[in-house]
Amino acid sequence: MQVTVLAGGYGGARMAHGFALEADRRAARSEELLELTVIGNTADDLEVHGLHVAPDLDTVMYTLAGLANVTTGWGVRDETWSASEMLERYSEPTWFRLGDRDLATHIVRTKRLSAGERLTTVTVALCAGLGIRSRLLPVTDGRLRTKIRTGDGWLEFQDYFVRRQHADDVHEVRFDGLSEVTATPEVLAAIGSADLIVVAPSNPFVSVAPVLEVSGVLAAVMANQNPVIGVSPIVGGAALRGPAAAMMRTQGYEATSTGVAAFYAERYPGLLDVLALDTADADQAEPVRRAGIRPLVTPTVMYEEQDRRALAVALLEAATRNMPE
Amino acid sequence: MQVTVLAGGYGGARMAHGFALEADRRAARSEELLELTVIGNTADDLEVHGLHVAPDLDTVMYTLAGLANVTTGWGVRDETWSASEMLERYSEPTWFRLGDRDLATHIVRTKRLSAGERLTTVTVALCAGLGIRSRLLPVTDGRLRTKIRTGDGWLEFQDYFVRRQHADDVHEVRFDGLSEVTATPEVLAAIGSADLIVVAPSNPFVSVAPVLEVSGVLAAVMANQNPVIGVSPIVGGAALRGPAAAMMRTQGYEATSTGVAAFYAERYPGLLDVLALDTADADQAEPVRRAGIRPLVTPTVMYEEQDRRALAVALLEAATRNMPE
Repeated sequence: MQVTVLAGGYGGARMAHGFALEADRRAARSEELLELTVIGNTADDLEVHGLHVAPDLDTVMYTLAGLANVTTGWGVRDETWSASEMLERYSEPTWFRLGDRDLATHIVRTKRLSAGERLTTVTVALCAGLGIRSRLLPVTDGRLRTKIRTGDGWLEFQDYFVRRQHADDVHEVRFDGLSEVTATPEVLAAIGSADLIVVAPSNPFVSVAPVLEVSGVLAAVMANQNPVIGVSPIVGGAALRGPAAAMMRTQGYEATSTGVAAFYAERYPGLLDVLALDTADADQAEPVRRAGIRPLVTPTVMYEEQDRRALAVALLEAATRNMPE
Repeated sequence: MQVTVLAGGYGGARMAHGFALEADRRAARSEELLELTVIGNTADDLEVHGLHVAPDLDTVMYTLAGLANVTTGWGVRDETWSASEMLERYSEPTWFRLGDRDLATHIVRTKRLSAGERLTTVTVALCAGLGIRSRLLPVTDGRLRTKIRTGDGWLEFQDYFVRRQHADDVHEVRFDGLSEVTATPEVLAAIGSADLIVVAPSNPFVSVAPVLEVSGVLAAVMANQNPVIGVSPIVGGAALRGPAAAMMRTQGYEATSTGVAAFYAERYPGLLDVLALDTADADQAEPVRRAGIRPLVTPTVMYEEQDRRALAVALLEAATRNMPE
């Protein structure tokens, strides 16, 4: 069974981890193998101190490696900050904080990209170094950059997200470079051969959209006749993390799973067969269904590993029920 | 009073530190100011993990900043090694070990060089960040690389020096790029205006030579009529650190201060007015004099700060005695 997850950072990483844990469990018991491919967002990548940083890929990678810092929600656990202190002495801007262990990732990525390697093969090599058995692929090897229009004009994504702590109202989102980039052959193959495609509970506007809108991705997903299941990033009217709820409101949607269903139904009609929404939002099941998407009410909050795997199992069961004849 | 020190790493850093300490003492007591410029060797620079590392410049810089690791003799004190552990997981070669604090230096240097800055201005900026009041200048902004011929053929300098722990006999030394590089205007000015030029107790073959042989340096030193004082890196028949003594023997000199005097007298005739040699080698004073260089017998071992400053003071006094009429 092949599962392909379209993922942003925080929610995408946890969703991917759930499938990876289930894959490990199946492998240990010699059950039918589950092959996981995670397709990661690169539109929030940035250069920091001259290094290529890929926050969403890294959050997925560190989570799959069991190295994620659960306190911060980003970076590596048991981190040290020696380089950062020196970088401050050298007057480098350090609002985008990089720990010492994390820096090693960016150093290796930058070195290999400078030598002409594709981001895809670099990412695969980094994951191999951390002992990750699943496959993590950037959606594109090209340069894609999210820009956010606020009351202060257009901002770089991480300027809005980290430096200004996503406090601004978001009036508009655009993806610079979109007309020049294409999905990699590996990404298109992973979508084409998937028995289940999962749209992770990541921010629809700035995490999922820049994956879906890369040339080739949406068409490949639509061409795959197997189930496509989304997971709502909104629980009880709020995002577990980040500005998804606020962004939904400024973009004209209510900050509920119904709003999420409406967004996907309008922006990508026919994409989602099923939308998983949290048991706390069971009352949203009917409105979601009216938006043309089958609701799946199930616990979606993934703090603990067991919750992550349980959600993955629930989606796998729903997929089996929703398999085309 | 302007003092210009031609320096390699270990011995050069300590010699420079002695003058910097004396400069601080004079400034604190409103005595005649001592302006120190250190001209650093860059021929042992290398790329590590895609980062530009300048070991000799950094040893001088960290020493002047009071950050040097006196246990290792290289790198920064109170260092952490988190990035290095991750780099190993990513299968990066880590025989040239870079600590986390040290990495920050190379990251900033690489970023600024990539942006088109000169190594000179980058070095000055790094020193400013660490609060260094003296001036540290790379001898050239160009690319110069020491190669060492051993029984196994030509090796990169740090391959010979660090990876193989300078265990090989050195048959030949060459400086790749020498015909293309020139001394910077800042270096030539610092030599031209010096009241005292010091050739630090660094390895004559691989630390001092690649400074002196950069186009413009030797001519500028010879054109300056003020005293040029060398300090012997050999004490009691051995180098305090590194392969200087072994290298002298394979290059046809005895491993004594007399051998050092012979090397400078043959290779750079007329360069040294004075050679400082350690009190332990007082018996070498006459042979040094016979090589045509005035001997100065004085303690030259610089473990402690007070020893460093004392040697600087001894050289300043000798310079005053040797001033041209």
